[in-house]
Amino acid sequence: MKKQYLLTPGPAPVPEEIMKAMSEPIIHHRTSQYRDIVWKINQDIKKIFRTDANVLTFTSSGTGAMEASVTNTLSKGDTAIVVRGGKFGERFSEICRAFGVEVVPIDVEWGTRPHHAAIEKALKEHPEAKAVFIQLCETSTATLYDVKSIGSVVKNTRAILVVDAISGLGADEFFMDEWGVDIAIGGSQKGFMLPPGLAFLAVSGKAWKLAAASKLPKFYFDLKRYEKVVTEGDSPWTPAITLVLGLGKAVSMILDEGVDKFVARHAADAAFVRQSLSGMGLEVFSKYPSDALTAIKVPQGLDGKKIVDTMKTKSVIFAGGQGHLKGKIFRIAHMGAITREDLEHALEKLKETLAELGHKVK
Amino acid sequence: MKKQYLLTPGPAPVPEEIMKAMSEPIIHHRTSQYRDIVWKINQDIKKIFRTDANVLTFTSSGTGAMEASVTNTLSKGDTAIVVRGGKFGERFSEICRAFGVEVVPIDVEWGTRPHHAAIEKALKEHPEAKAVFIQLCETSTATLYDVKSIGSVVKNTRAILVVDAISGLGADEFFMDEWGVDIAIGGSQKGFMLPPGLAFLAVSGKAWKLAAASKLPKFYFDLKRYEKVVTEGDSPWTPAITLVLGLGKAVSMILDEGVDKFVARHAADAAFVRQSLSGMGLEVFSKYPSDALTAIKVPQGLDGKKIVDTMKTKSVIFAGGQGHLKGKIFRIAHMGAITREDLEHALEKLKETLAELGHKVK
Repeated sequence: MKKQYLLTPGPAPVPEEIMKAMSEPIIHHRTSQYRDIVWKINQDIKKIFRTDANVLTFTSSGTGAMEASVTNTLSKGDTAIVVRGGKFGERFSEICRAFGVEVVPIDVEWGTRPHHAAIEKALKEHPEAKAVFIQLCETSTATLYDVKSIGSVVKNTRAILVVDAISGLGADEFFMDEWGVDIAIGGSQKGFMLPPGLAFLAVSGKAWKLAAASKLPKFYFDLKRYEKVVTEGDSPWTPAITLVLGLGKAVSMILDEGVDKFVARHAADAAFVRQSLSGMGLEVFSKYPSDALTAIKVPQGLDGKKIVDTMKTKSVIFAGGQGHLKGKIFRIAHMGAITREDLEHALEKLKETLAELGHKVK
Repeated sequence: MKKQYLLTPGPAPVPEEIMKAMSEPIIHHRTSQYRDIVWKINQDIKKIFRTDANVLTFTSSGTGAMEASVTNTLSKGDTAIVVRGGKFGERFSEICRAFGVEVVPIDVEWGTRPHHAAIEKALKEHPEAKAVFIQLCETSTATLYDVKSIGSVVKNTRAILVVDAISGLGADEFFMDEWGVDIAIGGSQKGFMLPPGLAFLAVSGKAWKLAAASKLPKFYFDLKRYEKVVTEGDSPWTPAITLVLGLGKAVSMILDEGVDKFVARHAADAAFVRQSLSGMGLEVFSKYPSDALTAIKVPQGLDGKKIVDTMKTKSVIFAGGQGHLKGKIFRIAHMGAITREDLEHALEKLKETLAELGHKVK
């Protein structure tokens, strides 16, 4: 059996220690043992979100938490400003529309990021807007948004700032409270080094206030039912217990490394990848690259799908492009438990692949 | 370390083989390897639902699938008939109301079941009703409903029959197609012997037709997006991959044993438990006991919580009562991977416990 190098932006590799924590005999969730674990996780995970707010956990993919951020804060006919710079910005827009929320889109070219002045302008033109939806890292283009600057313009308005930090959290710098983020969303299968199945949502006081007036229907993702998970240790529905046990291990591993160091390691690995690619004569796609993953332009004359497929025969799994970037870019994740050695190996195989496909590599 | 006997109606114990399948290095979900697994699961799991319909899988608790059965079939202001014979019947009612669906409740005493004539009557009085919501096994009272008879009256109307079979499936006899069930809901942490985190939903042609006219807002649980999972092997959002790999193992274990034999084993174990309890002078709470779990009346003069707590000190985990049955009943699950030996051990410890608490045991 050959080791597979899974360098995709979710699922990302799951370390042995976390697998082991999830393989322990299952325990019941209405016990003090489980409640203590959940309480400890909340204390720890806040430090990764850089917030004093409680971090609620859903059994769902990240999309479930994105939906929750809409249905728990808005009412039918409300206006929301949605930045669309890739597939996940588009998803926020689709969710808003599915629930009857008016979308004021701010479309940015894929691979670039919104300027905070554009959001300021939209907020002035639409003083009725109750929320601004953005990404920390737009996974489809591997682009880092300037959440800090956007936060500084949103925080002076009535609108809340909702940040999909699913792929960026842990890899890109993120300071929920300091930057004025009202809802921050995370997912288990990225920097948290877990299998997919859990989504996280931290909610500011401003967002809770807005939530109190929200009239959109909700039940499974009703935040008010989850607030008790943390305060009373009581889960509204049966949680994905094994994944939560893995989460306990994952957050303690991150805190053991130190959140700053954990993030800095991502920055170093990302810089290494970008430098290596540049050394190979390849071009990074994004103008503002994230440290969670790197998108690479497919060199002229080559087929992106063929690169990804050939890499796969070498047991290195990259992600292709999404939407109109299909075949035009491919993406290498360097998040969570992906090591420098994994990346070195993958880049070596990429060199081989490009040569095999007839591309001259520097 | 003492072995813990987890005899709760979800989570139930997870066999080693399934734990192992979930501990394999994680794979990506947009690969032919994963698609083949999902395709095979669908072929197998249909045989457990006894249906030709595709069985869709959500990353959520069973409640998510219950919500989906409402939001995908109904519109605001629609009428639904909801049987309320316990906590989970009440949950359907709460979900309907959260989404603006008018509820015609059929309240039955907890521990009993609805007569199909009552549903027939409600359908005649409310010809506008578009759906009837019931349980197969009402977990809070361990009561088996007569789905077959109810199906025979609903199938001649315009209404669909939605059955929460979360705790009953695999343990109690269930024939989705033959009995005229339109939506059948399952959950991973019961007879399927998995950790919690997946919910299943099989949808009849009649229900798909109703779904086409449904106007309730939905996104994460939008069934139309999941139909492709089976037909094209493509998941709308990142699925809980490790749990799905476990599911592949679980359904193949059930088919290896044989669905009939699997169900018959539950019937035999349930009969054994009921007989043993009766031999101990204890009374089964439900008038129509399910084969998934048994609810026992707390003997006069004893405190139900104390029984459950004392059992816990002996490493046997029972569930207490819910709602107004708190302290009045306790529940022993005999579903999935729970063995006869586990049950014998638990009943022996129950005898000890009752004696310790001063109750005369036969």
